[in-house]
Amino acid sequence: MEQKRVKIAVVGLGRMGKRHVHTLLYRVPFAQVVAVCTNMPHEIEWAQQNEEYKDFGITLYEDYDKMLGHSDLDAVWVSTSTDVHASQTLAAMKHGKHVLCEKPLSTDLDEAQKVVDAAKGYPDLKVMAGFSRRFDDSYRDAAKKILEDRTIGKPFLERRIFVDCAIHDIDLTLWYPEDPSPKSCWATGTLQHHPELEMSKDVDNAVGVVEFWGGKIAYFLCSRTQAHGHDVCTEVTGTEGKVAINGLPRDNNVVVCDKRGMTHEVQPEYWQRFEHAFATEANEFITAILKHKPVPLPLELGQKVMQIARALQDALWTGEVSRWDEHGVRL
Amino acid sequence: MEQKRVKIAVVGLGRMGKRHVHTLLYRVPFAQVVAVCTNMPHEIEWAQQNEEYKDFGITLYEDYDKMLGHSDLDAVWVSTSTDVHASQTLAAMKHGKHVLCEKPLSTDLDEAQKVVDAAKGYPDLKVMAGFSRRFDDSYRDAAKKILEDRTIGKPFLERRIFVDCAIHDIDLTLWYPEDPSPKSCWATGTLQHHPELEMSKDVDNAVGVVEFWGGKIAYFLCSRTQAHGHDVCTEVTGTEGKVAINGLPRDNNVVVCDKRGMTHEVQPEYWQRFEHAFATEANEFITAILKHKPVPLPLELGQKVMQIARALQDALWTGEVSRWDEHGVRL
Amino acid sequence: MEQKRVKIAVVGLGRMGKRHVHTLLYRVPFAQVVAVCTNMPHEIEWAQQNEEYKDFGITLYEDYDKMLGHSDLDAVWVSTSTDVHASQTLAAMKHGKHVLCEKPLSTDLDEAQKVVDAAKGYPDLKVMAGFSRRFDDSYRDAAKKILEDRTIGKPFLERRIFVDCAIHDIDLTLWYPEDPSPKSCWATGTLQHHPELEMSKDVDNAVGVVEFWGGKIAYFLCSRTQAHGHDVCTEVTGTEGKVAINGLPRDNNVVVCDKRGMTHEVQPEYWQRFEHAFATEANEFITAILKHKPVPLPLELGQKVMQIARALQDALWTGEVSRWDEHGVRL
Amino acid sequence: MEQKRVKIAVVGLGRMGKRHVHTLLYRVPFAQVVAVCTNMPHEIEWAQQNEEYKDFGITLYEDYDKMLGHSDLDAVWVSTSTDVHASQTLAAMKHGKHVLCEKPLSTDLDEAQKVVDAAKGYPDLKVMAGFSRRFDDSYRDAAKKILEDRTIGKPFLERRIFVDCAIHDIDLTLWYPEDPSPKSCWATGTLQHHPELEMSKDVDNAVGVVEFWGGKIAYFLCSRTQAHGHDVCTEVTGTEGKVAINGLPRDNNVVVCDKRGMTHEVQPEYWQRFEHAFATEANEFITAILKHKPVPLPLELGQKVMQIARALQDALWTGEVSRWDEHGVRL
Repeated sequence: MEQKRVKIAVVGLGRMGKRHVHTLLYRVPFAQVVAVCTNMPHEIEWAQQNEEYKDFGITLYEDYDKMLGHSDLDAVWVSTSTDVHASQTLAAMKHGKHVLCEKPLSTDLDEAQKVVDAAKGYPDLKVMAGFSRRFDDSYRDAAKKILEDRTIGKPFLERRIFVDCAIHDIDLTLWYPEDPSPKSCWATGTLQHHPELEMSKDVDNAVGVVEFWGGKIAYFLCSRTQAHGHDVCTEVTGTEGKVAINGLPRDNNVVVCDKRGMTHEVQPEYWQRFEHAFATEANEFITAILKHKPVPLPLELGQKVMQIARALQDALWTGEVSRWDEHGVRL
Repeated sequence: MEQKRVKIAVVGLGRMGKRHVHTLLYRVPFAQVVAVCTNMPHEIEWAQQNEEYKDFGITLYEDYDKMLGHSDLDAVWVSTSTDVHASQTLAAMKHGKHVLCEKPLSTDLDEAQKVVDAAKGYPDLKVMAGFSRRFDDSYRDAAKKILEDRTIGKPFLERRIFVDCAIHDIDLTLWYPEDPSPKSCWATGTLQHHPELEMSKDVDNAVGVVEFWGGKIAYFLCSRTQAHGHDVCTEVTGTEGKVAINGLPRDNNVVVCDKRGMTHEVQPEYWQRFEHAFATEANEFITAILKHKPVPLPLELGQKVMQIARALQDALWTGEVSRWDEHGVRL
Repeated sequence: MEQKRVKIAVVGLGRMGKRHVHTLLYRVPFAQVVAVCTNMPHEIEWAQQNEEYKDFGITLYEDYDKMLGHSDLDAVWVSTSTDVHASQTLAAMKHGKHVLCEKPLSTDLDEAQKVVDAAKGYPDLKVMAGFSRRFDDSYRDAAKKILEDRTIGKPFLERRIFVDCAIHDIDLTLWYPEDPSPKSCWATGTLQHHPELEMSKDVDNAVGVVEFWGGKIAYFLCSRTQAHGHDVCTEVTGTEGKVAINGLPRDNNVVVCDKRGMTHEVQPEYWQRFEHAFATEANEFITAILKHKPVPLPLELGQKVMQIARALQDALWTGEVSRWDEHGVRL
Repeated sequence: MEQKRVKIAVVGLGRMGKRHVHTLLYRVPFAQVVAVCTNMPHEIEWAQQNEEYKDFGITLYEDYDKMLGHSDLDAVWVSTSTDVHASQTLAAMKHGKHVLCEKPLSTDLDEAQKVVDAAKGYPDLKVMAGFSRRFDDSYRDAAKKILEDRTIGKPFLERRIFVDCAIHDIDLTLWYPEDPSPKSCWATGTLQHHPELEMSKDVDNAVGVVEFWGGKIAYFLCSRTQAHGHDVCTEVTGTEGKVAINGLPRDNNVVVCDKRGMTHEVQPEYWQRFEHAFATEANEFITAILKHKPVPLPLELGQKVMQIARALQDALWTGEVSRWDEHGVRL
């Protein structure tokens, strides 16, 4: 007799969707990938020719609703483009499926809130947004040191670098335990790699600063590309010290010493940095389903960050400071 | 319809045996752990109470021969103490099982050779010795840089640190491509942490140097314990540079900055450093079985290293230089 | 026959003034310290008891004007508090003395400009502001890589950390070669270590962002204290890479590995980090005098930075964005 | 009135001799370089054309004895080739001059001992051998941590890398406080960069191991060249930790991040690594003269190390283990 496994489908077979399938197959023994779904012709073709998917007996769907009707399906991992995250999550819930939805639920705050609200109507379903950094060993170790061990006294300053994101993608809730309330923020950006896009008001590098009521500050660099790889760093400064995560990004433990000096490579992209965090995230989601436990992250986690990201985006576009009153109301 | 999976049993439930079961369950989707075996009372008790083993439907055996008779068993991972590696591997082969045996096959060179010879009589069986470092991303990247890209010119010097090993455990074949032939070696050791064992001629820290015909040199530090964690380093120097693997050991990407300075933690033991390498090793072994491919490492890989390790051990005990002639014969 | 040496006096014997005397005595062979000056009782007492000053034959003055009348005096190093930098520099020039004045010339931009203008009336005098970072080997190496070798393509983003400074102390001209023109800036700060000073609108940690016409961005952290030492970092990002200076601050080459992990100490303050830069600065100033060469840095270097620092300070105090038009006029 | 300065001459104007003159001129205010001496035609020509030497009023001698007769000369820094170190030091002492002699005093142990013995006949002269690493901030900090703070418990293992040296140049006394007594040693070497020299029994890379009575071990790599720069590392392991000096060699604080990864340069040679140590050494030597204090390092410091170096050299040439009895007598 073998253990019960959660039958799961992945919708969206882009760069990350394929990786989520791989994670589920190779790292999540209590999950069984029974279906994938995409309506993109090149992804359909790719999946049809995938020997491994055949070995694992994975059914390919081109229609999301049909996929939701797959026999005995328990759960869905939504990994499509952001514009359908909300509708696909809502549909899955209606069909009684557990959902792990990539962030953000929506770039529209109201639509995201609708999903949060709707989920409350399905108390038996596990619905979770995919904040993968939250599952990374280093971020968790840092959180323990900062919040439990109080290694750095009272934290008051946070610096982050994001790569391969726009400012509205800021995907980690703020670190501070006391649930900080934003007071004002400002941002500016520049378009260095694709100046032809200047008319679209798009930027590929942006710097933002957020001031909170009570004297805390967070500042960000969002960069779409970095020549040397995926160099994402977080630093939290407190009254008695600083904790840095990923201050020295590197791909592995190899250093080459030659006439140029000493060189180590940097992980090329998000996946190499967070591959293991995705496996932890998926296992904890599957365990929540099997063991009837709460999901590790509440669905509404991203809403406050989304509000800040939106205010930063407004500042970036208008050049003006965005402000909130002490009750969290945008002024 | 689901894919075929290799039914495997793990014999030995010590510290590493338990981890091998975990690796197979969580990281190797084409393997199915059907049985474990141990005759150690505390390991038996531990396994009997293990909920996860029940969830996965794993049968516990106290008798190795009975385990070999488990229905439909395909393969065995031998993770017992070194003295039974050879006999258990031989028995598994006789029963037609594929074998992944932890190194060394034996501390007795002749007995190890018997296993190597016997395996030739079972050309359909996949029999492999577990040199896990060979599957580590960093070691593989370094091997590519040194042997394929020729990043450092002609390699001639190798330095290694081993932790939690005696000198006879030296478990990596030498790096050089040209199949180096040892000329002489010497070693000395000291007993720092358990001086009461001095009568047994045991040591907990040893330094060894091997000179090869043709001008290459390898030198080693074997240390049973290190206060700061599992600090294993390999450096290969060539005529045009040096490659270092694990020169800066660390547990994760977190650095704490406080009044003492900047501190990062070090992985506490072998497992944390090589957890992912074990998963790669197990997957490649299982794939070799399923796809009828050669095992990634030949069984005889360790024999030459064992000869050198034995010569170093002799030097350590006698204080004399061990020597070989140009044909590889010990003098 | 021995070489001619520049007779120099140091005014101000605070923490840095004492160090400047030491630098001149031990690192600048073509300078001869003939006098020091202070009107602070505890500094006077300290200097009177200083055996080394006696050994070197240094005269102590309590009155700056009398010091300027010291026989054969060639030059003055102004190291007093900022409020008298301008008046002491002007007085020294009137007495025909070369001047190395610590930055800033004044916190009042008009007063600073008066010194710059007055210096033009003394073309034979070497008058220089002390931007010591400009003389640091690492900053110079980075400048060469960025500006001459074009290692990182076109630079567009700069991050700096300043320690032990207020935002008006920002003491390095911006790095970009094309003489960037500021467009807007914003800043916010917090008072963490001395909250009792909140009424004075003072802060001990501030973050500022400056946007330039043409798409460049600089952002700063100014921190009065850091628990782990003097951790000042500069990063310049370009279209093809990044250069980091002092990304890994450390006091020396020692690493301690123990049960806490691996730890290195951080230089405790500005002096340990820039001791050698001060020696280079002083030697280049003295050489300019002796060899009748231009001073290595023009006196007006700091004026544009001062304008930006003032605008950041305004933003910090008002919460509003400071702006400039394309001709550099504050709006 | 100015302070008394020690009038010093430097004999030998090779790569290091020129640097010693520079150190004395720029870093040692209580020294006055009055003369230099060399009989090498290209060094004579170079010195004759040196403007700086003229500025400082330095007299050039081609004859060492005449140099010793320079009016009012107080001290000599012997920086010639090793074969004349002993005779020049003896001659200087006979003329009543203080001497700082580069190590080794001689490659001949008996000749070196003669100098040590002779120096005892001149109790008023300061005679010192130049073990410059002993004056390096990092080595001193490590010594304090190991020997005073007992940071790593009881030290028992030492690893060193030497660059640009032969095994007989090993120039640091062993670190251990308890005056270790060697028991046995062995060494082997290889000739990688100049194989044509093989007949001379010379090597350019050598590994040596020394075992001490009482269970301590030291092992060395001596390398004449390293592709990536001057990478000298020392590690001392104790029962409770490890201290590493120069584990991460680097030229300055600059890191370049580009598509190859993250790279820092390594100091090209001994001078860049130890420039400041030479200044400290020279200042402490001059202070010993002026203040009538003992020299910071006793002249006989190098004798025991020389004995070990000689035994390692014997092992390298013969392939046999060198041994000592418990009284320090070579067997």
